[in-house]
Amino acid sequence: MQTVQAIVKTAGTPGALALEQRPFPTISQNEVLIKIKKTAICGTDIHIYNWDEWAQKTIKTPQIIGHEFVGEVVETGANVINVKPGQLVAGEGHIVCGKCRHCITGYPHLCRQTVGIGVNMDGVFAEYIAFPASNLWVCDENISEDVHSVLDPLGNATHTALSFNVIGEDVLVTGAGPIGLMSVPILKRLGARSIVVSDINPERLALAKELGATATVDVRTQTIKEAMAKLNLIKEGFDVGLEMSGNGSAFQGMIEVMANGGKIAILGILPQDLPINWSTVIFNSLTLKGIYGRQMFDTWYRTTALLQSGLEQEIKKVITHNFHYTDFQQAFEIMRSGKSGKVILDWSK
Amino acid sequence: MQTVQAIVKTAGTPGALALEQRPFPTISQNEVLIKIKKTAICGTDIHIYNWDEWAQKTIKTPQIIGHEFVGEVVETGANVINVKPGQLVAGEGHIVCGKCRHCITGYPHLCRQTVGIGVNMDGVFAEYIAFPASNLWVCDENISEDVHSVLDPLGNATHTALSFNVIGEDVLVTGAGPIGLMSVPILKRLGARSIVVSDINPERLALAKELGATATVDVRTQTIKEAMAKLNLIKEGFDVGLEMSGNGSAFQGMIEVMANGGKIAILGILPQDLPINWSTVIFNSLTLKGIYGRQMFDTWYRTTALLQSGLEQEIKKVITHNFHYTDFQQAFEIMRSGKSGKVILDWSK
Amino acid sequence: MQTVQAIVKTAGTPGALALEQRPFPTISQNEVLIKIKKTAICGTDIHIYNWDEWAQKTIKTPQIIGHEFVGEVVETGANVINVKPGQLVAGEGHIVCGKCRHCITGYPHLCRQTVGIGVNMDGVFAEYIAFPASNLWVCDENISEDVHSVLDPLGNATHTALSFNVIGEDVLVTGAGPIGLMSVPILKRLGARSIVVSDINPERLALAKELGATATVDVRTQTIKEAMAKLNLIKEGFDVGLEMSGNGSAFQGMIEVMANGGKIAILGILPQDLPINWSTVIFNSLTLKGIYGRQMFDTWYRTTALLQSGLEQEIKKVITHNFHYTDFQQAFEIMRSGKSGKVILDWSK
Amino acid sequence: MQTVQAIVKTAGTPGALALEQRPFPTISQNEVLIKIKKTAICGTDIHIYNWDEWAQKTIKTPQIIGHEFVGEVVETGANVINVKPGQLVAGEGHIVCGKCRHCITGYPHLCRQTVGIGVNMDGVFAEYIAFPASNLWVCDENISEDVHSVLDPLGNATHTALSFNVIGEDVLVTGAGPIGLMSVPILKRLGARSIVVSDINPERLALAKELGATATVDVRTQTIKEAMAKLNLIKEGFDVGLEMSGNGSAFQGMIEVMANGGKIAILGILPQDLPINWSTVIFNSLTLKGIYGRQMFDTWYRTTALLQSGLEQEIKKVITHNFHYTDFQQAFEIMRSGKSGKVILDWSK
Repeated sequence: MQTVQAIVKTAGTPGALALEQRPFPTISQNEVLIKIKKTAICGTDIHIYNWDEWAQKTIKTPQIIGHEFVGEVVETGANVINVKPGQLVAGEGHIVCGKCRHCITGYPHLCRQTVGIGVNMDGVFAEYIAFPASNLWVCDENISEDVHSVLDPLGNATHTALSFNVIGEDVLVTGAGPIGLMSVPILKRLGARSIVVSDINPERLALAKELGATATVDVRTQTIKEAMAKLNLIKEGFDVGLEMSGNGSAFQGMIEVMANGGKIAILGILPQDLPINWSTVIFNSLTLKGIYGRQMFDTWYRTTALLQSGLEQEIKKVITHNFHYTDFQQAFEIMRSGKSGKVILDWSK
Repeated sequence: MQTVQAIVKTAGTPGALALEQRPFPTISQNEVLIKIKKTAICGTDIHIYNWDEWAQKTIKTPQIIGHEFVGEVVETGANVINVKPGQLVAGEGHIVCGKCRHCITGYPHLCRQTVGIGVNMDGVFAEYIAFPASNLWVCDENISEDVHSVLDPLGNATHTALSFNVIGEDVLVTGAGPIGLMSVPILKRLGARSIVVSDINPERLALAKELGATATVDVRTQTIKEAMAKLNLIKEGFDVGLEMSGNGSAFQGMIEVMANGGKIAILGILPQDLPINWSTVIFNSLTLKGIYGRQMFDTWYRTTALLQSGLEQEIKKVITHNFHYTDFQQAFEIMRSGKSGKVILDWSK
Repeated sequence: MQTVQAIVKTAGTPGALALEQRPFPTISQNEVLIKIKKTAICGTDIHIYNWDEWAQKTIKTPQIIGHEFVGEVVETGANVINVKPGQLVAGEGHIVCGKCRHCITGYPHLCRQTVGIGVNMDGVFAEYIAFPASNLWVCDENISEDVHSVLDPLGNATHTALSFNVIGEDVLVTGAGPIGLMSVPILKRLGARSIVVSDINPERLALAKELGATATVDVRTQTIKEAMAKLNLIKEGFDVGLEMSGNGSAFQGMIEVMANGGKIAILGILPQDLPINWSTVIFNSLTLKGIYGRQMFDTWYRTTALLQSGLEQEIKKVITHNFHYTDFQQAFEIMRSGKSGKVILDWSK
Repeated sequence: MQTVQAIVKTAGTPGALALEQRPFPTISQNEVLIKIKKTAICGTDIHIYNWDEWAQKTIKTPQIIGHEFVGEVVETGANVINVKPGQLVAGEGHIVCGKCRHCITGYPHLCRQTVGIGVNMDGVFAEYIAFPASNLWVCDENISEDVHSVLDPLGNATHTALSFNVIGEDVLVTGAGPIGLMSVPILKRLGARSIVVSDINPERLALAKELGATATVDVRTQTIKEAMAKLNLIKEGFDVGLEMSGNGSAFQGMIEVMANGGKIAILGILPQDLPINWSTVIFNSLTLKGIYGRQMFDTWYRTTALLQSGLEQEIKKVITHNFHYTDFQQAFEIMRSGKSGKVILDWSK
């Protein structure tokens, strides 16, 4: 029997990732066989590595992990109409039911029956995978494979940044992790007047500045209100906020510096039961919007269009490391250290 | 010197409302002299009566209270162009700065410099008042004075109900106080499929039913999930929620019964620092929107249009009591008992 | 070989409809076998009957006609997940490509590769049909089969009426054919303040009145401006217009009676090269929106929700005739006479 | 009596512009006295110069012309709260009624009672003017006076470009006059993927290219479809169109190259009674939106914000000429020749 190499979470303990031989995948009529070229490591993969509370109750070992990838179509099932062998593809990691109201009215990202690839089932960190055709995105081959391998988190950034009109608006981004960083050049390209980014990591704040942030705030040494005072544009507060940190006090602080009628998109996973100042939310007419995933496939389309009109150069700067897939341990270490942007595994040779 | 009778908060203690003689008002060039016909008692007036924490830090005694009214224009200042003597008028109780971004771009209800009539300055519970012309709404004389006297809270209900598209949607209203009740026939007239109302007051729930609620839930004896099970329409949860109770557990419970992508408008004043389940908000892509006041004057326009096309009959049912203004003590008592809808004071004779 | 009876356009001449025996349909893995219960006659079917210019260049004879139906699922292909045998279903008559931007981002009704059932391929006026599963709508069995058989044109009415916000607005509907008539109770249920309907057919105008029109205008004897003068609500013009007549002068006249910023949805097929007053469109900031088909399946969902909350009673009044399918000639005659609303063919026995 | 110099249309004949002495303006309590610094010549001023059909029926001579200006506040009326002496201001040239539905709900640009400064009453081409305070825009003094003098037409460009979402979209601009040119860098800053500009003037097309157009089309030598074929991004047609030419065949051609669901904003004054292909509008679900003026003052706010974040450099390129106001004849000649972008008159010395 033919086999492929895959990165497998082998047991319910921290670490416990190994390169193993797995059966060569077979495809159903609605699936596509893909030769993986590049994969990227997501925060989710780090949770699985660390075997935290969420991982313990969600992941069943042994399981191939990973969901961010770009690859080449090798073979298509009999019922597949949207892709052809030889095409470069990326893929949406949420498999939806296809039957509920949201699925049939154009909002499948809101499906309640979603199954996560690399989370609830085997993932894509492997030489070859079988993948549902309806979850594929055909790539523009003028855009690099590296950038294509991060289309999923870049889509998170786009989906969040597109939640509210930012034309001429002042925007606060709390959190300069990879997705927070990617949101900066997107906001700039959508016409935001000012983009202020807060974090506690000076390297990431420096990268935010390079990517187009108007100002950055290291909240260990300066408050956001102090930063606003220097930027004399922002008179009444921020019009739009993107919560990308998952940090409770960052979110609580953001609420206090929003203009009346301000709008906040929340992508970071906030602490369960975090108390906030509801009087400010109500009396200042704030809107808080939870963001999950990406719109299938409107976000993919607009993200690609933004890449085609120049965003690609900026996103490349957020990709800081490239490893051969056999060096995955090193890749996970650097990702866990916080001293990286996106980290890529190369499966092309 | 000519005087008028007015209901005055005379001292910083519970109660302490008295009918007093005050100087007959004089108008500036941008103001209008109004002979009051009817006024309505707001929850805000009850806070002032009760002298709760909010009142203690907000109200400076002695002060004429009240802000919900209908009256007749008697005289207009030299610079007034929008109303004429003899016209029936109601008025928006928030005086805005007229200079900030929101004021000059069509969103004055978001002004940060708002001054509240009957809160931060003398109110309208008086025989005659001077009122800024730009805050007046010219009434359609085919609609009753009683209903006009509650245009302000009815506007709260409209503004909340119009926050999100409800066409064909399933809507949960938590709280059947006067504004929650008024929202029911509005939602029905905007095409909601089902309107479920929860409260702990059986009389108010009965009135909600009469006003068009599809189902009501007395949360002392039944959970909302149990009610949903009976209404077999609601499969995945509510599409839209209107929080009208100010009750923390009602709001926490609402979040758990929303469909993915569900939208909640929050008019009730929630407890400061209430913790909620942020994972549900984020993973289910919920939107939470704080609501305050009404849009000047889009809400007034659409509310009047809805009254003209039939809503008036239903709103009349929410007005349960009418007193002569000299019987204001009785009116406040019934309002404080919770055994009423809207309570009106008559100043016309 | 087993056969079914079907209504076939047999030749490229006016009339030329015949009941013929056709092979019993076989289904592919993505299709469903349906036993037809009711079908309705569309204006498109009348064009085919009349063999007008459009039909001559579009239809290839012999062809089974028809696309409005309700039926029961008898058998499902191996790849079908959304319906089961025994379910009652209606169907969207536009088959889309499934691959283009619009198809994959939630707007398949905008697909450029659309194929029309009963137009570009065999239709549904037959005892049994094979139908693509992804085009099916599962019916709520509490709603009558008659109303389900007209879900397609009712969807046109909903899609048009939902094009613009009508809450509290004054709406003009030009044309009281079946779809214009169906739009009246929809507009009423969405909160329109006034609904004025124009036509030249007194019976249809009387039905419009019965369905909830605020006023009707027989443009043979009265202008719309005269009607507006009587309805003293409409001061500056109509806020929203629905063009349902396909009549050039009705559309030209509508433009002249719109308020500044007014919005017109155009469902009627206007004469090619119709000149209009562009100065009015531009200086009065009007919006003109072409409407075709229905949103898959958002329109179906909201239409069903409106039916569930009471619209069904009104739509039943628009269905004026029911014939056994073998009496189709009579059904076409009454439909062609203009003296009917919707006309239904019964295939259930 | 003190006087000011002003450019006056002296008689109802072509040309007939003269520098005349006029009484020094006096201000009412709601007005502001402004010392003019720069004015710009609008297409409207050219119509008045040429004394075309529109001018003949609209303008009453003698009249001071002009409405695009920047100046300094010298004195304010007693009732003025929004500006102070010494501030730099520009002004909206449409005086609205302040009482109609649109004026009181935040949409004064839709007022039907609009009076045009420099059109229906004396204009701003003068050393000093009296101007209604509520029509003033307080300038950011970091932005040049030249750019401030063209805020009105730049606002037309912004208002048109903001009519529809252009994020990642392909946009066609027909007409490379000053406003068409200004729309190019705006569209680029709002995230459009491609911006194709058509005209028949090679110099203007070259400037469009310099301002960020992806491609330009000289329609004397190439069709738009040919240009699309080269730009292989545009597969199904343009998503958004901005009609800036007023040319009938440009607009007719634009309709044919739009994607299904495409949206067109029309700022150019199209020929009265222009016939178009309504079948394309309807079957392809196109939206056509007439644009007039600018939103008061949302457009002014967002335009300023875009200038603050870099647009200023590009707009400066559209300003091609600067003359002392006494050389106005020369300025009008160059503007009439079509060999210019915006032309400015300097009144500061």
